[in-house]
Amino acid sequence: MGSIQNQKHENETIKPLDPEEFRKQGHMVIDFLADYYKNVEKYPVRSQVEPGYLRERLPESAPYDPEPLEEILQDVQKDIVPGITHWQSPNYFAYFPSSGSTAGFLGEMLSTGFNVVGFNWMSSPAATELESIVMDWLGKMLQLPNEFLFSGGGGGVLQGTTCINPNNFRAVSTTKANAFGLTAEALRSTIEADIEAGLVPLFLCSTIGTTSSTAVDALSPLCEVAKEYGIWVHVDAAYAGSACICPEFRHYLDGVENAHSFSFNAHKWFLTTLDCCCLWVKDPNALVKALSTYPEYLRNKASESKQVVDYKDWQITLSRRFRSLKLWLVLRSYGVANLRKFLRSHVKMAKNFEGLIAMDKRFEVVVPRNFATVCFRISPIEIGKNQIVSKEEAINNFNAKLLESINESGKIYMTHAVIGGVYVMRFAVGASLTENRHVNLAWKVVQEHANALLTMS
Amino acid sequence: MGSIQNQKHENETIKPLDPEEFRKQGHMVIDFLADYYKNVEKYPVRSQVEPGYLRERLPESAPYDPEPLEEILQDVQKDIVPGITHWQSPNYFAYFPSSGSTAGFLGEMLSTGFNVVGFNWMSSPAATELESIVMDWLGKMLQLPNEFLFSGGGGGVLQGTTCINPNNFRAVSTTKANAFGLTAEALRSTIEADIEAGLVPLFLCSTIGTTSSTAVDALSPLCEVAKEYGIWVHVDAAYAGSACICPEFRHYLDGVENAHSFSFNAHKWFLTTLDCCCLWVKDPNALVKALSTYPEYLRNKASESKQVVDYKDWQITLSRRFRSLKLWLVLRSYGVANLRKFLRSHVKMAKNFEGLIAMDKRFEVVVPRNFATVCFRISPIEIGKNQIVSKEEAINNFNAKLLESINESGKIYMTHAVIGGVYVMRFAVGASLTENRHVNLAWKVVQEHANALLTMS
Repeated sequence: MGSIQNQKHENETIKPLDPEEFRKQGHMVIDFLADYYKNVEKYPVRSQVEPGYLRERLPESAPYDPEPLEEILQDVQKDIVPGITHWQSPNYFAYFPSSGSTAGFLGEMLSTGFNVVGFNWMSSPAATELESIVMDWLGKMLQLPNEFLFSGGGGGVLQGTTCINPNNFRAVSTTKANAFGLTAEALRSTIEADIEAGLVPLFLCSTIGTTSSTAVDALSPLCEVAKEYGIWVHVDAAYAGSACICPEFRHYLDGVENAHSFSFNAHKWFLTTLDCCCLWVKDPNALVKALSTYPEYLRNKASESKQVVDYKDWQITLSRRFRSLKLWLVLRSYGVANLRKFLRSHVKMAKNFEGLIAMDKRFEVVVPRNFATVCFRISPIEIGKNQIVSKEEAINNFNAKLLESINESGKIYMTHAVIGGVYVMRFAVGASLTENRHVNLAWKVVQEHANALLTMS
Repeated sequence: MGSIQNQKHENETIKPLDPEEFRKQGHMVIDFLADYYKNVEKYPVRSQVEPGYLRERLPESAPYDPEPLEEILQDVQKDIVPGITHWQSPNYFAYFPSSGSTAGFLGEMLSTGFNVVGFNWMSSPAATELESIVMDWLGKMLQLPNEFLFSGGGGGVLQGTTCINPNNFRAVSTTKANAFGLTAEALRSTIEADIEAGLVPLFLCSTIGTTSSTAVDALSPLCEVAKEYGIWVHVDAAYAGSACICPEFRHYLDGVENAHSFSFNAHKWFLTTLDCCCLWVKDPNALVKALSTYPEYLRNKASESKQVVDYKDWQITLSRRFRSLKLWLVLRSYGVANLRKFLRSHVKMAKNFEGLIAMDKRFEVVVPRNFATVCFRISPIEIGKNQIVSKEEAINNFNAKLLESINESGKIYMTHAVIGGVYVMRFAVGASLTENRHVNLAWKVVQEHANALLTMS
């Protein structure tokens, strides 16, 4: 009778993870995405839809009955793709690009497929151990001091991303004279002023490659000042950390041996898909003391043996994905050799773009380029002559207009920054499909739009 | 000459997102995972490796040269799979299972493939708009009051997970008399004591389906008390929220109309892969006021028009993945009909397990079952007779020993809780591949190990 009951039961239920259905549908989506990459160059880079476009196209409620994948993929193509700003387009030069890769994608697939919740060692030992191993590998590639590695008493952990509430920190001004890097003098006077005001400075976030201009703080003098006041020094190399696996860029990290923690985002410029922020600390106990939770339902022999890392105690959230798989696949599939080649090719393209700018006297590079991001503007003499605003303001406005005109065309996508009062266009090379020909074309687009705007004004 | 230069450049670089290579390797990994699901039942559910197993198997540094995918996948099989606790196994009944599905996996693939960073509307309008739409769909499925939907002035957002630092809250005790639900009386006396002590209670986290025993708080009386003191009421239905799309379970949410926010984790019991926590609030401005950041490099016309949602202001971090795609694929691929069928089949299997327990007088269900999780223990009369500890302590110890013996066998995996001083084994039905035959087998495993231990003692 038991078996009859089972039979009946199985007819009533659904099989959401049937291996052969998974195989069939998985192949369909792989083909869909391969075709997407083949065609991505044809789409406007910055989406051209208007706010609310999707609500007009989709039904008001979830369907009651199941719908076939074929139909859903048609809708993705018809309704979703037009609303995507194509970060994987070779003509994407905005923010910092997110460099997807086949290996990163495959690693994410494996992680999603296993779908383990690796909050502690026991919940999937491989998830914890691979993460520790890969973080040691990466730390060695970056020549981080041994104190940051597990073998040296420190350790690394993968987070989603890094962010701090702006109410809890103050920005310290930088100037062109120091290439927009934070100086020890500015740090010291800010600390002193805060102490005078009754505050307790406790954390310094120094930056290797700022978001606006990829400026670099000189770590050694900053660490010296911070040490006097007992301040924790974090080195945020979210963007530029990747480049430091190349010997010619490693000097930007000089002084990191005196910092307490270091991070970079592999999802920016390291062929790893979102999200994957690599964080190292010299003293993991500092994390554990602040973040540990140990409710009864998580207690287990391995944790009590103190022989294992429970990564839940190294992060704010409890749940965590098996992120190290994608990093492992990236490191193995490309190797140190090809990762360096990849990063260098972007730096070379950015240099090429700088060279193109230099040949057109109307344009200028505003801050020195450190990596693969060029901050530039147009500064033609005609502008500002008959304006009621100041000349600098007129130039800023013109550049903002130019950038919007370029982005509206959908041919390329760049974003802006304001550095020392100067509005700049940021040309950030970093998308995985970008080749030198795209950089050359991008420059032509910039010139064409500048010509058109100048003719009109 | 330009084209010769390009040619040379392309030979120097790598092509990490070549569409045909992506297609070929993508198909390989789909097949790898389909085979994994086909064989997952054969692996020990809880990994049997020892701490440090992986460091012995992997090299000390990342490879300098690229390695082929075939080799990497062999290593995944050989070195990673043994270290995985198989959350997708049909014999997985631990914690709360993570119910993967084909549709959830495909949605994650699309999201990873597009690899957009949807911090604001502009960075990929579809990512923001689909999330808003899907959250409204889900809110309607749960019959949340309109105030929680965008159409009613509220709104929903997808987070990674929910967690609060234990130093910032206090747990309020519950008792068996109220089925371990929080009572209005206990809440009021805790609030009063805190106020007496000079504290300012400001946030109540009520729970629909606690982690230990899936107990349910009665929302209406709690909201009444909280309102008197101006306290924000959050309803955490991380596990049980899913079930409330079935009319017969919806009553557990009665009173949610008086709460301020509501959340459930679609990555637990809703066929959506990690991570996907659905959060609704009546007053999104409360989130924006607390979390908004607007640095220059993110300024754009759409944000300034105030016509769009910028989800970066609804969460702690800046970066965010296109999580709504997987939820959309789950909702469309299964429809309300099959999602209900799926949830009900698990409840039915848990009922079956309860029935099996009832037929063996040595065992008892310790707390009433609300959903698909059964908290039970063995309480044989022989235990505790000749012990130096109290009888209750002896029974607790015996159950802990029994659970460890079961889990060590690798045949099934359950975890424990301690409820009102009683050590219970938690049998949580929730893995997508679980069928009734696995539940019957699991019960046999429990009985066999109990018999063996009792014979030995």
